[in-house]
Amino acid sequence: MFCWLSRLFRDLSRSTGRTTQPIWGSLSRSLILSSQRSIPELSSFVARTNTCGELRSSHLGQEVTLCGWIQYRRQNIFLVLRDFHGLVQVVIPQDESAASVKKILCEAPVESVVQVSGTVISRPPGQENPKMPTGEIEIKVKTAKLLNSCKKLPFEIKDFVKKTETLRLQYRYLDLRGAQMQYNLRLRSQMVMKMREYLCNLHGFVDIETPTLFKRTPGGAKEFVVPSREPGKFYSLPQSPQQFKQLLMVGGLDRYFQVARCYRDEGSRPDRQPEFTQIDIEMSFVDQTGIQSLIEGLLQYSWPSDKDPVMVPFPSMTFAEALANYGTDKPDTRFGMKIVDISDMFRNTEIGYLQDALSKPQGTIKAICIPEGAKYLKRNDIESIRKFAVDHFNQEVLPVFLRANRSWNSPVAKFIMEEQGLGLIRLLEIQEEDVVLVTAGENKKACSLLGKLRLECADLLEARGVVLRDPALFSFLWVVDFPLFLPKEENPQELESAHHPFTAPHPSDIHLLYTEPQKVRSQHYDLVLNGSEVGGGSIRIHNAELQRYVLAAVLKEDVKLLSHLLQALDYGAPPHGGIALGLDRLMCLVTGAPSIRDVIAFPKSFRGHDLMSNAPDSITPEELKPYHIQVSWPTDSAKKRAR
Amino acid sequence: MFCWLSRLFRDLSRSTGRTTQPIWGSLSRSLILSSQRSIPELSSFVARTNTCGELRSSHLGQEVTLCGWIQYRRQNIFLVLRDFHGLVQVVIPQDESAASVKKILCEAPVESVVQVSGTVISRPPGQENPKMPTGEIEIKVKTAKLLNSCKKLPFEIKDFVKKTETLRLQYRYLDLRGAQMQYNLRLRSQMVMKMREYLCNLHGFVDIETPTLFKRTPGGAKEFVVPSREPGKFYSLPQSPQQFKQLLMVGGLDRYFQVARCYRDEGSRPDRQPEFTQIDIEMSFVDQTGIQSLIEGLLQYSWPSDKDPVMVPFPSMTFAEALANYGTDKPDTRFGMKIVDISDMFRNTEIGYLQDALSKPQGTIKAICIPEGAKYLKRNDIESIRKFAVDHFNQEVLPVFLRANRSWNSPVAKFIMEEQGLGLIRLLEIQEEDVVLVTAGENKKACSLLGKLRLECADLLEARGVVLRDPALFSFLWVVDFPLFLPKEENPQELESAHHPFTAPHPSDIHLLYTEPQKVRSQHYDLVLNGSEVGGGSIRIHNAELQRYVLAAVLKEDVKLLSHLLQALDYGAPPHGGIALGLDRLMCLVTGAPSIRDVIAFPKSFRGHDLMSNAPDSITPEELKPYHIQVSWPTDSAKKRAR
Repeated sequence: MFCWLSRLFRDLSRSTGRTTQPIWGSLSRSLILSSQRSIPELSSFVARTNTCGELRSSHLGQEVTLCGWIQYRRQNIFLVLRDFHGLVQVVIPQDESAASVKKILCEAPVESVVQVSGTVISRPPGQENPKMPTGEIEIKVKTAKLLNSCKKLPFEIKDFVKKTETLRLQYRYLDLRGAQMQYNLRLRSQMVMKMREYLCNLHGFVDIETPTLFKRTPGGAKEFVVPSREPGKFYSLPQSPQQFKQLLMVGGLDRYFQVARCYRDEGSRPDRQPEFTQIDIEMSFVDQTGIQSLIEGLLQYSWPSDKDPVMVPFPSMTFAEALANYGTDKPDTRFGMKIVDISDMFRNTEIGYLQDALSKPQGTIKAICIPEGAKYLKRNDIESIRKFAVDHFNQEVLPVFLRANRSWNSPVAKFIMEEQGLGLIRLLEIQEEDVVLVTAGENKKACSLLGKLRLECADLLEARGVVLRDPALFSFLWVVDFPLFLPKEENPQELESAHHPFTAPHPSDIHLLYTEPQKVRSQHYDLVLNGSEVGGGSIRIHNAELQRYVLAAVLKEDVKLLSHLLQALDYGAPPHGGIALGLDRLMCLVTGAPSIRDVIAFPKSFRGHDLMSNAPDSITPEELKPYHIQVSWPTDSAKKRAR
Repeated sequence: MFCWLSRLFRDLSRSTGRTTQPIWGSLSRSLILSSQRSIPELSSFVARTNTCGELRSSHLGQEVTLCGWIQYRRQNIFLVLRDFHGLVQVVIPQDESAASVKKILCEAPVESVVQVSGTVISRPPGQENPKMPTGEIEIKVKTAKLLNSCKKLPFEIKDFVKKTETLRLQYRYLDLRGAQMQYNLRLRSQMVMKMREYLCNLHGFVDIETPTLFKRTPGGAKEFVVPSREPGKFYSLPQSPQQFKQLLMVGGLDRYFQVARCYRDEGSRPDRQPEFTQIDIEMSFVDQTGIQSLIEGLLQYSWPSDKDPVMVPFPSMTFAEALANYGTDKPDTRFGMKIVDISDMFRNTEIGYLQDALSKPQGTIKAICIPEGAKYLKRNDIESIRKFAVDHFNQEVLPVFLRANRSWNSPVAKFIMEEQGLGLIRLLEIQEEDVVLVTAGENKKACSLLGKLRLECADLLEARGVVLRDPALFSFLWVVDFPLFLPKEENPQELESAHHPFTAPHPSDIHLLYTEPQKVRSQHYDLVLNGSEVGGGSIRIHNAELQRYVLAAVLKEDVKLLSHLLQALDYGAPPHGGIALGLDRLMCLVTGAPSIRDVIAFPKSFRGHDLMSNAPDSITPEELKPYHIQVSWPTDSAKKRAR
């Protein structure tokens, strides 16, 4: 149970990075990448001499003082004491002279906190426990102190005891005692520390704190407002330090980073965390390649030593390729099942649905091949897939099975001409027992649908025991060449920024900005890990004229709200770019946790509540008075509408 | 001007901490305190090969590419280029073949951003500039690129050009280009990084982020409120992670730290920073001594290497001693002028004012001696001192001068009996030309007044050229044994917490809690540096019954608002304690900055405004709708009252 922690601390003593020879006296800068790590002193300044988890045969004979929680007791003879570091067996003395010690250790309820002093001794032969890192030794107790007694718990502090998430969040302080939460939070701390070493100590970045009480950004619908004591004046909690980090570049602090707290009010979206953390980075005089190399080095350096090392450089894919091959801008590249365009093969098909699709603008026919689908997917799996396509995409999906006798099994089998069949097999590399899912329609929609089905089918196959995605594999990917603008959903005649209005256009497309802005690609880049977006950034616009044009002419924004930024660009702003990594999501993937709530000490619930303290909560009108606001209670009819 | 930066980076390569011999194979834990630091690579990933500030004779002949701002130009022959690291001289080519390069470099306005490539060459003999770290070399340019042009600036980017603070804050991004702000922010980043190394890498602390959207704490009048999308429900921005850090201890994360963003809405108090940063620390199984040793080690380890090293342990003083000797709980111990009780000497005085004072409860006579006061303090200084005492403390101050002929010069000189005079000289160690300030009255009030006058007179003496406080001296001090409770100002019959309700009582006074709570001392400790409070903490109550008693019986608080914390204490809470260091204040003292605004990248103005972006700002009723609040505009009469 606690073995991982021993590993974690042992790994700290290993050298984790490359070490280059210092070239003293040479003309080039000498660069010593010393990442030798020391073992942290875990018992300095406190009442214990050792942690429970660290004791080994090498400690035999030592007098130790331990502090910890009573994990369990066996027949009033043994007691297992726990701290964050692990478990150790304590022998409860049975002789009359130690009656008071025995009383304390036998009467304290489980999860009480005790301090014991005694000697590290060998377990009697045959009683060693090889599954326990401290299993060769036990503690012969001399004195014991009850530091705090524990009342009856709402649930047991054992990892195998399943608790509802509500209960876990309500008693978060008990949930944190479990080995998994301890591992997650400690690994997070260590990984962030290594990132800081890489940025600060190796590459001269400056850690700068930026304000979180700021001005509302244009279109900042997801920003929490914070009333001030001036009537009608509000601060806003920003979604990222974007403006500040650009202003720092103008200010000549040319390598900035911050582990930044950010806020996003996503209203009624489920699983929202109103505050989250990003590794926020900005550099001057840099291009896309520079930022990408920095991040590759950062992740390689900070990657946990108990995982397979990260290989660099990361592969790169354009947005267009990602969409065409995976139907998403964050492809999971741990497995194949890529989307294949089979339009050409079916130009002269007799299948009406496919004919129809091809006759329309952007019409295509696309397919994915599910290896051994015939073996693992049941009839009703196929039916749910088809229903999903109709319900969510208003699309038909045609399943096509290649039988062992190499004939087709499909509702449209008889319309597949031999030539088409052979073409399909070649293009999709179909094997016997595979299933091909075919859809037709507008290009983007068809790709999106198959992208979703690709992931859906992968989950299904894995649920049936197929190993499709190696759980030890971390597959990083850069996605680049995003469009700079997208048509607004509510009014496709107008454009909005695909990411944010400070993103620089792609140098090759800059002329299109004034003629066909919708065709301009950007210098934005996303970092994708195992199919999740874990970071994104861009080279920014550093020219005030260009920024004004984008804001006013293309996006029709009120430039007054950003006048401070535009002015700053006029006063000698260097070319600059940056990136932000989503730390919560990254840690979630690194630890393999099912939810980001498992890598945050005190997360909000699904509905944005703190279940432990009951926040947000009502406050009195009196308490609102200094802020010159009052609650507008919804009328009954408004409440009904809201439902 | 930029010499400090060279020093800063050179210092990085020095070993800064102690190194102990690893005792391999020994039974005791081997503790390697390796704090060898490497020189950070400042030009990785970017367009430059070197920084402007790093070039020396050792770079002669190298081809370099530099990016920076045009600091100034001399007769179209030289151009001085600046980046964060320093200045370098660039020779503008004069030959016809380089006409385009000359044009770029001669036409770009000052503070424009340029990129130049060329060769590092020696300056001609006699033209070296020993005041400039790069003064032996210059750059022979081959190519130049204008990266961004600069418009006419609102002020010059030179440190000797004095700007108003309003202008500095309005164009903060320009102010940041100055050497002093660069130094302050870079030193802050480095010092925090070293603190993290000490806590994480040397002592196994875990960096844990706690939420800032939380529940209102009882009596939390200084907490900003954040409306949620649920009608009438509000989050609160906490003043510190106090509750969370205690809950982490209950959760077995027994060594926590965080560089925590905290919020405090101080309403109309001047010079408020609504958000600030603290180094927040909590440990289990620790006592006051443990926390103090930890902090002493932390400051020693992270102390800037360009300052005199910090000596440990820090001296300690009780709250009572501090009040008696310095009239404040944060004494500036860099100089003497202590308060002396001279009551006994004047028991039988004929001076009516003193007689009166002694006859009242808590009545005392106190004095401070100002060395060479007769030489440096003018008549109207003494008059303002006396006026200050009357205006702010409703107290008389009697000035007493010891003349060169050892007679007294004072309004009450003739009432000072010889014995009393000799006693005064002995007790206060009075020298000729010294001035003694005497006051009488209720003990605390008399001490507070003299405490204030002590500082006031020190400032006066220093303004007249006396060196009283060594500017290189950092005088740390622990103040301990604070009272646990204080009488409420508005109703002295009731008690409130001197610090916060989670502070543990002093073990020797615990019995008084139930009989005379006002006499109970606490286990709170403050860290004082040069007369400013830079930190404070306490051992906390870990017993639920005791905590309930303090909250309900002594403080008459509604315990329901803290039920989650009380419940947590019931479920096996370990004994624990902690501290928080005010990072902004600490950095202000370390850098010698006149205001904390000089160690914060984007501070708020005196009135809590962001002058650059104009925050807080008005927002539309539409934008408030999702939060179910509306502005209560003050009526004219209410506005008048507010004035």
